Amino acid sequence: MSFVSALLLASSLLAQGASAQYYKRLGSCPTLGCVFPPDQSDFLPGQLFDIRLEVHAPVNGSEAYNGGVPDEMFALCIQEGEGACVGAAEYFGQEEPVLEQWSFEYYEDLFAEDADNTTAVNVASKAYRAVSLFKPGDYLAKLTYYNISETVANWTVRAPSTERKAKNVLLFIGDGMTQSMITAARLIGHKSINGRYQSLMQMDQMEALGHQMTHSLDSFITDSANSATALYTGRKSSVNALNVYADSSPTPFDDPKHETIAEMFRREIGGGLGIVSTAVIGDATPAALCAHTRDRDQLAAVVYEYLYSAEELNATLAWPTSCQSPDVIFGGGAELFLAEEDAFEGRDMYAEFAAHGYNVVHNKTALAAAANDTKTLGIFSTSNMAKWLDRQVYPTNLQNKANSPTGDGSDATDQPGLKDMTLKAIDILNANYKEEGWFMMAEAASIDKMMHVLDYDRALGELLELDDTIRATLAHLKALGEDENTLVVVTADHGHGFDVFGGADTMYVAAQEDDRMKRRGVGIYVNSGLSGYQVAEGASPDNDTLVYGEQGPNFPVQWAPRYAYAAGFAANPDHREDYSVNTTGPRLPAVAVSEEDEDMVVNAYDNPDGFVVNGTLPVAYDQGVHSLTDVSVFASGPGSEAFRGVYNNIDIFFKLAGALALGSSAAERC
Amino acid sequence: MSFVSALLLASSLLAQGASAQYYKRLGSCPTLGCVFPPDQSDFLPGQLFDIRLEVHAPVNGSEAYNGGVPDEMFALCIQEGEGACVGAAEYFGQEEPVLEQWSFEYYEDLFAEDADNTTAVNVASKAYRAVSLFKPGDYLAKLTYYNISETVANWTVRAPSTERKAKNVLLFIGDGMTQSMITAARLIGHKSINGRYQSLMQMDQMEALGHQMTHSLDSFITDSANSATALYTGRKSSVNALNVYADSSPTPFDDPKHETIAEMFRREIGGGLGIVSTAVIGDATPAALCAHTRDRDQLAAVVYEYLYSAEELNATLAWPTSCQSPDVIFGGGAELFLAEEDAFEGRDMYAEFAAHGYNVVHNKTALAAAANDTKTLGIFSTSNMAKWLDRQVYPTNLQNKANSPTGDGSDATDQPGLKDMTLKAIDILNANYKEEGWFMMAEAASIDKMMHVLDYDRALGELLELDDTIRATLAHLKALGEDENTLVVVTADHGHGFDVFGGADTMYVAAQEDDRMKRRGVGIYVNSGLSGYQVAEGASPDNDTLVYGEQGPNFPVQWAPRYAYAAGFAANPDHREDYSVNTTGPRLPAVAVSEEDEDMVVNAYDNPDGFVVNGTLPVAYDQGVHSLTDVSVFASGPGSEAFRGVYNNIDIFFKLAGALALGSSAAERC
Repeated sequence: MSFVSALLLASSLLAQGASAQYYKRLGSCPTLGCVFPPDQSDFLPGQLFDIRLEVHAPVNGSEAYNGGVPDEMFALCIQEGEGACVGAAEYFGQEEPVLEQWSFEYYEDLFAEDADNTTAVNVASKAYRAVSLFKPGDYLAKLTYYNISETVANWTVRAPSTERKAKNVLLFIGDGMTQSMITAARLIGHKSINGRYQSLMQMDQMEALGHQMTHSLDSFITDSANSATALYTGRKSSVNALNVYADSSPTPFDDPKHETIAEMFRREIGGGLGIVSTAVIGDATPAALCAHTRDRDQLAAVVYEYLYSAEELNATLAWPTSCQSPDVIFGGGAELFLAEEDAFEGRDMYAEFAAHGYNVVHNKTALAAAANDTKTLGIFSTSNMAKWLDRQVYPTNLQNKANSPTGDGSDATDQPGLKDMTLKAIDILNANYKEEGWFMMAEAASIDKMMHVLDYDRALGELLELDDTIRATLAHLKALGEDENTLVVVTADHGHGFDVFGGADTMYVAAQEDDRMKRRGVGIYVNSGLSGYQVAEGASPDNDTLVYGEQGPNFPVQWAPRYAYAAGFAANPDHREDYSVNTTGPRLPAVAVSEEDEDMVVNAYDNPDGFVVNGTLPVAYDQGVHSLTDVSVFASGPGSEAFRGVYNNIDIFFKLAGALALGSSAAERC
Repeated sequence: MSFVSALLLASSLLAQGASAQYYKRLGSCPTLGCVFPPDQSDFLPGQLFDIRLEVHAPVNGSEAYNGGVPDEMFALCIQEGEGACVGAAEYFGQEEPVLEQWSFEYYEDLFAEDADNTTAVNVASKAYRAVSLFKPGDYLAKLTYYNISETVANWTVRAPSTERKAKNVLLFIGDGMTQSMITAARLIGHKSINGRYQSLMQMDQMEALGHQMTHSLDSFITDSANSATALYTGRKSSVNALNVYADSSPTPFDDPKHETIAEMFRREIGGGLGIVSTAVIGDATPAALCAHTRDRDQLAAVVYEYLYSAEELNATLAWPTSCQSPDVIFGGGAELFLAEEDAFEGRDMYAEFAAHGYNVVHNKTALAAAANDTKTLGIFSTSNMAKWLDRQVYPTNLQNKANSPTGDGSDATDQPGLKDMTLKAIDILNANYKEEGWFMMAEAASIDKMMHVLDYDRALGELLELDDTIRATLAHLKALGEDENTLVVVTADHGHGFDVFGGADTMYVAAQEDDRMKRRGVGIYVNSGLSGYQVAEGASPDNDTLVYGEQGPNFPVQWAPRYAYAAGFAANPDHREDYSVNTTGPRLPAVAVSEEDEDMVVNAYDNPDGFVVNGTLPVAYDQGVHSLTDVSVFASGPGSEAFRGVYNNIDIFFKLAGALALGSSAAERC
C-alpha cells in the first residue's frame, strides 16, 4: 500500500473515532464529556474519593467539535436510586469548584504518529475533592454538557461487612506471578517420584483458591501501578496510575484520587501498617498503598507521601486521609532517600524519617537487631534489592555493585531476603498493635523484574523465596498465637506469558555451531525429561559454582543441570536462547543498536552459545511484557473462604475490607 | 567444541547413565529391574490391573551389565503393610506366568543419535494379568533380581467413598485449555465496560474451583493420551500411552493395563456410558475411556475396543472388563469405520455397530431425529470435525473438503457442534438409565488442535463453544430435573504456553513493508486497547465476511476488528505473524523445505502480510507443543466441593470415583 493511500485510508478510518484502540483521547472517556469515577465504579461506604469532570473540544481530527471551544456550563448531579438528581456541590455540601482549563495533543493512531499528525483538544474541567458516599445502593452521576449531551456513570456503593473476621491481614504479592510460574517453581524446587511430588509448595496447600481478572480500566493489559490500585482501592485505573483516575491535565498530581485500604485501615481502625518489598520502595506495588499520582515514576513524591501525606504535598487539594507514616517500610531504592541522589527536593529523607521516630537500618544484621517496639525504616540497597539466586548461589555477583544504601559506594553484600523482612515486620507490628491488629503487604517484586529480562531462573528463585516466606510466616504466626487471627492472602497483580514447554540438553545446545542444529537440543513431550534440579549430579561440566543440597528442601539442589527446563514467552524482544542459568547475574537480552539508534537488537554477549530468537514486540522494546491471563489467589485464615471462585481484581479490595469490616461504621451513619 | 571432543565428553557424561534426560532406557525404570505399576502408584479397591516385571541387561553403553544376559530368576513378592512378603503368583492366586524375552535398542542422548551409536538391551520379563487389590492401605511390591538387587514399589490402595453423591457424571474436557485461554475467550466473547464484564463465562460461575498438575509419569510435559489416562484411571503414564504403562516389548498391545473409570462404572454400577468429541473418535481423549495400548496411533484397534473388548482383541491376555459398547459414541474419524479406508482389518465397522443394535447417524439433522431409546453411533466427518468458526462465521470453508462420513466424497456441511452432540447424548442416556445413572465425557478437542497450528481465533472459538455447551447443559439438566443428581466437571488435560500480551493494529501491520516496522503495530500495556470483538463497527476494511451480532451473546460480535488481540506462545515453530483472523480455514504455519528435506520452514502463504518469527523448537517441528502449566478445574453439582484446591491429575479419577462410590463394594469384601 502506498504512503498516500495509507494516509487516505487512515483518515477515513479515523472517522471511527473512539474505536481507535492503540491510542485513546482519554481512557474511559469515549464521548466528549468525562466523569471520573467513571461508569461501573464500586465504592465502600465512607471511602474518600475525588470527582473530576472534563468536557473536551477537539480542535481537529476525527472528533473535531464546536470549533475547539469546550462547554463551560457543564453540570454534574448525583441521583440516589430512583430519587431526584441533586447538583453535586449541594449533594456533597461543598462550594462549587473553580473552572479549570487546559489543552493537550495526541495521535489518533500509528499512521498519524508516523506522519506527525497530532490532534489538539481543549478542555474545560472541575474537580470535587475528598467526597464520599455512605448509603449502600445504586447511584447515577449525570454530567450534562453542550446542552444536549449527557454522560451517565453508574456508581454502586457495596454493603460493607459488619463482622470483623480478621484482626490482622497479610497480603503477599508475587509480582507478575502466574500459575504457570508456580508450576515451574514446583518442578525445580520439589522432588517428584514417578509423578508424585514428595513435597508441595506452600501455595498449593492454602485453604482457599480463587482466580482474579487483572485487566485495566481502559486497556486489557495492565501494569503494576493500576493493578495494585485495583487490589488496594476496588477501582481499576489506567496503566501507570497510582490510586487516581488518569485525567488529561498536564500535572500528574491533580488527578482524581481514591482512598486505599491502608488509608482506610489507619483512619477507621488505627491498627499497624507494614510495607515490605524487594524492589525500590517507591516502586508501584508498595507505592500504591499510600501514594496518589498519575505517574508511577514520581518516585521521590511517593516516598514523601509515605512519611507525610498528599495534603502536605499539595495543600490546595483536600485529601484528609493518609497512611499516617507506616510502622514498617522495608525495601530498596536508597536513591530516593539520599539528598545527593534522587530524594524529594534534595532532602535527606533518612534524617526526616529518623526525626519522626523511625529506627533506620541498612542491612540484614541491623534489621535482626532492631528493637520491635519502634517504627522502622529499612532500606537495604540502591535500586532493586539483590536476587535470591545471587544472594544464595552466586554470591560473587553481589560484588562490585557500589549499591550500599548509605550512598558510600560500597557493596551491599549483607542484604536481607523477603523472609527476613517479612518476619521482622510481623514482630514489629505484633509488638505494637496486639489489640488493634495490623495490615501488611509484602511483595516478591523481582519475579516480574526477572521475567521481564527473560531470566527465568532468577524469577523462579524469587518465587521459591516467596513460597518459603509464606511457609515461614504461617509457622511464625502460629508460634505467636496469631494464626487464627490473621488472614493471609497470596496473589499476583498480573501475568507474563511464560510457560515451560520441554527440556533442553544444554550441553548439546552449546556444542552445536548452527542455530537450527542448536534447536535440536530441545526435547518435547516424552523427551522433556524429568527435573534435574533436585539431583546433585548431572550438572553441566562447565559449571563449577554449583551448590549441592544447601537450598533444599523446597528449593533446587542445583541450578545448572545438563538437562534444563525449556521455557519461553508469548511476547519477546529479540534475544538469544540457550536455556542455561546465567551465572553472572540478571540477563540483558537486548541492547540498543547504537547511541543514535535506539532500536533494540540481540545482545551478542547474552547467551552467546544460544540461538537467535527474533521478537514479536516492537523493536523499540528490549524486554518482555505483561500478559492478559487471570492469576491465582490463595488464602488461609479467617475470612479466607471469601477468596474462592472467579472474580475481578477490584473484588479483592472488597474481600479484604470485608474481612476487616471496613466501611461498616460509615454505613451505619446513614 | 570439536566433534571428537564432543564425543569424548559425551561418553564421559553417559557414565551418568540414568540421569540422561532427553532419552531414557525405559520410563520410570531408572535401575535394571522394572516393576509396573511403579513406585508411588495409587489404586482403587477392586480396580483391575496388570503387573509387568522386566530385568534389563544392557549389552553396551553406560549401563552395560552382566555381559548383556538378563537374570531369569527374578521374583516379585507383595507385602501388605508390615506383613510378610508373599510371592506374587501365590498372592494373586494365579499360575506363575511364562518367561518372555526380547531385545531393544535406544540412543542414550542426542550426541549418540548424531553418531548413530545405539545401546542394545536384552530383557527378561513376566506379566501377571488382571489382578486387583482390595484392602485400603499401603503395600510394597518387591522385585529381587541379579540376586543382590531390589526394586521396591510403594503402592497405596485408597479408601473408597461409601456414599454415592452423584447419580450422573458429566466430564467436559477442553483439550489443551489453560486459564490464559479462558481469559482471552472471555475478552472476546463478553462485553466489558470500564473493566466490568457485563456477562461472564459459564466456567467462571461454577461452584468449585481447583487446579490440577498435568505432568507425565516420566517426563514433565504430557500429551493427551497419558494425561487422559491419569484422569480416567488415577495412574500417570508415558507420553502416547493409553491406559497402560509403557513396557519395552516390541508390540503395543501387551503392555500392562489398568482399568478405567468407564470400565469400572459399567462393571460395578451398570449405568449408561457416553463418549463425545469433536475430534476423530479414535483420538486419545475419547479413546482413553476404553482402549488399552502403548501407542495412541492404533486408531483402528481403539474403535474395535469400543465395540468389543481387549480380550476379544487378544484372547491370550486376560482382561475381564471393558466399556461394554458405550451407549453413545459421537465424533469424527469416519476413516476408522470405512472398510476401504482405515477400519480394523478392513471391516465395515458401521455395519458391525449396527449389527450390535446401534442407530448410526451421519449429520446434524439425523442426529436430532434419532430415537432416544437406542444406542447411537454418530460419525459426522472424516478426520476431525469442522471448527465452530468455520461452521458459524466462514461456512464457505466447509466446501470442497470431500469429508463426508459415508465415504462418498461429498462435503460434510451439516455437522453438529459440541452442544448438539452433548445435549442429544444426555437425552439418550437419560432415557435409558434414569435409575442407574450415567457417565459421559465430552471433549472440545480442537482448542488444542488449533493452538498447535497457532490458530488462536479458531481455538478460542472452540473454547467459547465449549462454554456455550456447558451453559446449555446445565440448563438442560435442570429442565430434565437432573441438575441435582449430576456432577459436572470441566477441566483440561494439559496446556499450551499461550497468552495475550497486547493489541495489534492489524491494518498497520499489513501496511508496512519491513518486518521490523510491522512489529511496531503491536500495542502493549495502555496501548493494548480494548476488545474490538464486541463491537460491530471498526472491522478491518478488507474483511467483508464479517457477521454482525449473530453469535452474541457470549460470543464475539465480529472476528476481524482492525485492532485485534496480540497473542503468542512460549514455544514456536518458524512462522509468520500478522495477528489477523485466518478467513480461509485453519492455519498451516510451517511447511517442509522440500520433499527430500523434512526440516520445517515458514509457510510463505500463511499470513503473508505478517512478519517472520523464527522458532524455539527443533526445526523438525511444524507446530506448537504442550506446556507444563497447572490447569483449572471447575465443578458444580453433588460432590463438586471435592474438586477445590490444588492436586494432581490422578486425583481427579479418585474424586470422580468417590462421587460415584466406585470401589466401595470391593473394599467391603475384605
